[in-house]
Amino acid sequence: MPEESVPVSPCEPLTPAQAAEVVGGSLEGEGPAQIRGIADLASAGPEDASFVRSAPDLGGRDTGPDPDALGDTKAGILLVSPDFATEGRPCIRVEDPILAGAALAAHFETPPPRTPGIHPSAVVENGADVDATASVGPNCVVRAGASVGPEAVLEAGVVVGEDCSVGPGSRLHPGVVLYPGVSLGKACVLHAGTVVGSDGFGFHWDGTSHRKFPHLGTVEIGEGVEIGAGCTIDRGTFQATVIGDGCILDNQVQIGHNCRLGKWVVLCGQVGLGGSTEVGDGVVFGGQSGSGGHVRIGAGVKVAGGSAVLNDVEDGATVGGHPATDLRLDQRAKALLRRMARKKEAALD
Amino acid sequence: MPEESVPVSPCEPLTPAQAAEVVGGSLEGEGPAQIRGIADLASAGPEDASFVRSAPDLGGRDTGPDPDALGDTKAGILLVSPDFATEGRPCIRVEDPILAGAALAAHFETPPPRTPGIHPSAVVENGADVDATASVGPNCVVRAGASVGPEAVLEAGVVVGEDCSVGPGSRLHPGVVLYPGVSLGKACVLHAGTVVGSDGFGFHWDGTSHRKFPHLGTVEIGEGVEIGAGCTIDRGTFQATVIGDGCILDNQVQIGHNCRLGKWVVLCGQVGLGGSTEVGDGVVFGGQSGSGGHVRIGAGVKVAGGSAVLNDVEDGATVGGHPATDLRLDQRAKALLRRMARKKEAALD
Amino acid sequence: MPEESVPVSPCEPLTPAQAAEVVGGSLEGEGPAQIRGIADLASAGPEDASFVRSAPDLGGRDTGPDPDALGDTKAGILLVSPDFATEGRPCIRVEDPILAGAALAAHFETPPPRTPGIHPSAVVENGADVDATASVGPNCVVRAGASVGPEAVLEAGVVVGEDCSVGPGSRLHPGVVLYPGVSLGKACVLHAGTVVGSDGFGFHWDGTSHRKFPHLGTVEIGEGVEIGAGCTIDRGTFQATVIGDGCILDNQVQIGHNCRLGKWVVLCGQVGLGGSTEVGDGVVFGGQSGSGGHVRIGAGVKVAGGSAVLNDVEDGATVGGHPATDLRLDQRAKALLRRMARKKEAALD
Repeated sequence: MPEESVPVSPCEPLTPAQAAEVVGGSLEGEGPAQIRGIADLASAGPEDASFVRSAPDLGGRDTGPDPDALGDTKAGILLVSPDFATEGRPCIRVEDPILAGAALAAHFETPPPRTPGIHPSAVVENGADVDATASVGPNCVVRAGASVGPEAVLEAGVVVGEDCSVGPGSRLHPGVVLYPGVSLGKACVLHAGTVVGSDGFGFHWDGTSHRKFPHLGTVEIGEGVEIGAGCTIDRGTFQATVIGDGCILDNQVQIGHNCRLGKWVVLCGQVGLGGSTEVGDGVVFGGQSGSGGHVRIGAGVKVAGGSAVLNDVEDGATVGGHPATDLRLDQRAKALLRRMARKKEAALD
Repeated sequence: MPEESVPVSPCEPLTPAQAAEVVGGSLEGEGPAQIRGIADLASAGPEDASFVRSAPDLGGRDTGPDPDALGDTKAGILLVSPDFATEGRPCIRVEDPILAGAALAAHFETPPPRTPGIHPSAVVENGADVDATASVGPNCVVRAGASVGPEAVLEAGVVVGEDCSVGPGSRLHPGVVLYPGVSLGKACVLHAGTVVGSDGFGFHWDGTSHRKFPHLGTVEIGEGVEIGAGCTIDRGTFQATVIGDGCILDNQVQIGHNCRLGKWVVLCGQVGLGGSTEVGDGVVFGGQSGSGGHVRIGAGVKVAGGSAVLNDVEDGATVGGHPATDLRLDQRAKALLRRMARKKEAALD
Repeated sequence: MPEESVPVSPCEPLTPAQAAEVVGGSLEGEGPAQIRGIADLASAGPEDASFVRSAPDLGGRDTGPDPDALGDTKAGILLVSPDFATEGRPCIRVEDPILAGAALAAHFETPPPRTPGIHPSAVVENGADVDATASVGPNCVVRAGASVGPEAVLEAGVVVGEDCSVGPGSRLHPGVVLYPGVSLGKACVLHAGTVVGSDGFGFHWDGTSHRKFPHLGTVEIGEGVEIGAGCTIDRGTFQATVIGDGCILDNQVQIGHNCRLGKWVVLCGQVGLGGSTEVGDGVVFGGQSGSGGHVRIGAGVKVAGGSAVLNDVEDGATVGGHPATDLRLDQRAKALLRRMARKKEAALD
C-alpha cells in the first residue's frame, strides 16, 4: 500500500506528495523522501519545507517575493507562488505561500494533549455546567452558573466567574480570569494572564472622594477571537463591552469599558482603547497606539504604531501621530521639522 | 403596610418614591410602578431609570447637560439636575445626576456573594492571621505573618506574602499577588492579576554585569484605593513606595520603586511612573502617559494622555507633549507644524 | 574571641570592621558599635549605613558625587568613593559606593525562606524532573517532561509547561507561566505574573478571516536574566525568541516573536519590541519606548524613553523621537518648534 493512500497523521513526516495535498498545491520536482518540519529559509534544513512570502505582513511591510530570497537556503522543498522562479529547486506551487506554510506548520504543531475531564485539584462549584468533552486543568476554578462548552480547554489555574459561558473548542491558557457574566464564543484562544470583565474605570468626584460607578454590564466576545497574554478588557457600565468575531489582539492590550469592536479588528501589542471607543470592521491599530474615549473609528482604518486617536476617523483612512491625523501629513510634518532643525544647526556652525 | 415603609433590599425593584429616597432626590411626576434597573439613555427601557450627565467626566470631556440628550429615550424615569428641562417626563431631581446614578446602580449591583471562611483548597500558613469574617477563596495562599482583616475578600488564587496586611473590607480579585511586607488599607479593591511589591528596577553595572540592588523597602497603600487589572507596583529600595488614600488606578498601570502618590490621584490606563516620582494630591495622568524618574509633580496637575513628564511640574498646571510642557503650547506647536507641512505641500502642487 | 573573626550571618548587625569586609573597603573613623541596616542619606539613622552615589544611574541621570549630598544625614557610617570629603564622618572608602551599598543591602535582605521539596498542593506530573533541592510552592503545576534545577524556587501558583527547563538557582515569583518548551538558564529571576512562550502574533488574511500561523519555536532565556512583573515574551515562529545572558527587563515589557536580544540588554518599564527585532549587547531602551518589527539595533545603542525605533540603528548611537533619530536632533527639533509656537503667539498678542 503506497504511503500516499493512508491519511496523514499529525506531526508525522510527510512525503512531498502528501505535503502538496495538505497545502492544496501542485508538486514540481522531487524533494526529500521525508519532510520532517517547516522553517524559515535561513534555518531550514534538507528535510524541511520552507516558503517564500508573496505578500506584505500585517504591519504592511512588504517582504516578498524577492528574487534573491532563496539565497543559499538548504530547504528541501519550497512553497512558492505560481510564478516564482525557483531556479530548479523542488517546490509546491500555491496561490498563497504563507497560508500554505501555516497549513504545513499546523500539521507539525504539537499542542500539549489535554484529556477531557476535570482535574482533581480543580474547584467546580455546584451549578456550573462543564461539558463532558471539556478539559478543566489543575487548580482551575469554575463558579456556579458558568458553562464550559464541548472540547473547550481550561489550562492550569484558570478562573471562570459566575454565569460566564465559554464556547465550544475555546482554549484558555494558564491564569486567565473571566469575571462573572462574561461570554466567550466558540473557538476562541485567550493567552495566559489575560483578564476579561474587570470593572470599568468609572468614577465621579463627590466633593471628598472619587465615587465609584458600579458596573452592571459585561463583556461579550465573539467567535474565533484570539487574545494575547496579559490583556485586560473591562466590562461595560450598563451594556456589554463587545469584541466582534475574528478579532485578534496581541499581548498587553487594554480595552476600556463600553468599547465596541467590529469583526476582524487587529490590535497590536500594548494598544490601549479608551472607554466607549467604537471600532469598525477590519481596523488595524499598530503597536503602542491608542484612542481617547468616545471616538468612532470607521471600518478599515489603519492607525500607525504609537499614535493617539482623539477624534472620529472616517472609513478607510490611514492615520498617525498625536493627535492622529492623515498619516502622510504627519510624516511630512515630522520630516519638515527635522530638516528645519538640521538647517538651523548648520547655519550656526 | 405601604411598601415605602419597608427597607429596600439590594437588587429588588424600587418604586419611584423608594428610588428617590435611595438617591436623596425629589420625585417629579409618576414614573413606572417598578424600577427594575438603570441604564444609559439610549438603551434604557420603560422600567429602567436613566440619568442626564451634568458634568465633565474624568477625562475632562464635557458631555452634558445637553438639551437634546433625551432624544427618544424610553427610560421610565430620569435622574436630572434641578433645572434640566425634562419635557414633562417623570424624573427625580438631584444635585448631581451621575452620583445619583451611581447610588442607584449600587442598589442594583450584585457582586458575587462570598461567605466568610477559608476555602478548603486555600493554603493558609501557620502564623497567618485571617479574621473570622474574611473570605479566603479557592487556591489562595496566605503566608506566615500576614493578616487579612474583617470582611476582606480574597477571590480565587490570590497570593498574600509574608507579613502583608490586608485592611478591613478590601477585595482582591483573582490572581492578585502581594509580595512580602505589603500593607493595604481598608476598603481597597485590587483587580485581577495585579502585582504589588515586586522588586524595583535597581541595577548597577559592576564592570561585567548588571548587579542588582536588593530592595529592602515595601509598598504602603492607603484606604479606599482602587487599582485596575494587570497593574504592577514595585517596592521601595529602602523605604516604602506609597499610594495615598483614595487613589484610583486604571488597568496596566506601572509604578516604579520609591514613587510617592498623594491622595485622590488618578492614573488612567497604561500609565507608567518612573522610579521616585512624587505625585501631589489630585493629580490626573491621561492614558499611556508617563514620567521619567526623580521628578516632582505638584498637586492638581493634569497630564494629557500620551505625554512624558521629564521635569518637575508646578501645582495646578496642565501639561502635555514629549517632553511635557504647558498643554496649550504643545497643542499650538503641533498645529503650527501641521499647517506648515500642508502649506509646503500646497506650494509643491 | 573577637567578633570580627566569626563569619557574618545574613541579616545580623555588623561592626564597622565587618561591614568594611563585606564591601571590600577600608574603614576610616569609628562609626556605630552596630550597623543594623542600610538606607538612603535622608532616611538613615545613627545605626544605619548609607552611601554617596558617584555615578549616573541607568537612566543616565548623574546624581553624584555631590559635595552637598550629605546634608544633615544622620547615617552612622558612609560608603564613599576614595576622594569624597566626608567632613570627618566615619566612612568606608570603596571604588564604587553603589556596588558597596548593594553588597551591604544584600547582607540585610531577608528573602522569604523556601524549604526544598514539593508543596502537597502542587501538581507535578509524571515525567517531570524536579531536583531534590528545588522548592515547588503551593498550587504550582509542573507538566510532564519539564525539569526544575537544583535550588530553583517556584513560588505559589507557578505553571511550568511541558518540556520546559528551569535552571539552577532560578526563582519564579507567584503566577509566572512558562508555556511548553521554554528554557531558562541558571540564576534567573522572573517576577510575578510574567508569561513566557505565548504564541507570537502571526496571522495572515485568508480572504475571510485572520488565519493563525502556528508557532513551532520557543523561547530561550540565558543565565542571570531578571524579568519584571507582568512581562510577556512570545515564542518564535520556527526558531527561538532569545534573551541573552544578563539582560534585565523592568515590568510590563512586551517582546514579540523571533526577537533576539544580546547580552546585558536593559529594557525599562512598558517597553515593547515588535517581532524579529535584533538587539545588540548592552542596548538600553528607556521607559515606554518600542521598536517596529524586523529592525536591527546595534550594540550599545541607547533609546530615549517614549521613542519608536522604526529603522536599523548603528552601534553606539543614542536615538530618540518617533520615528527615532539622533537624540540631539530630535530634542533640537522639538525645542525649535516650541520656540516658533511661542513667537507666533507673542506676535498675535
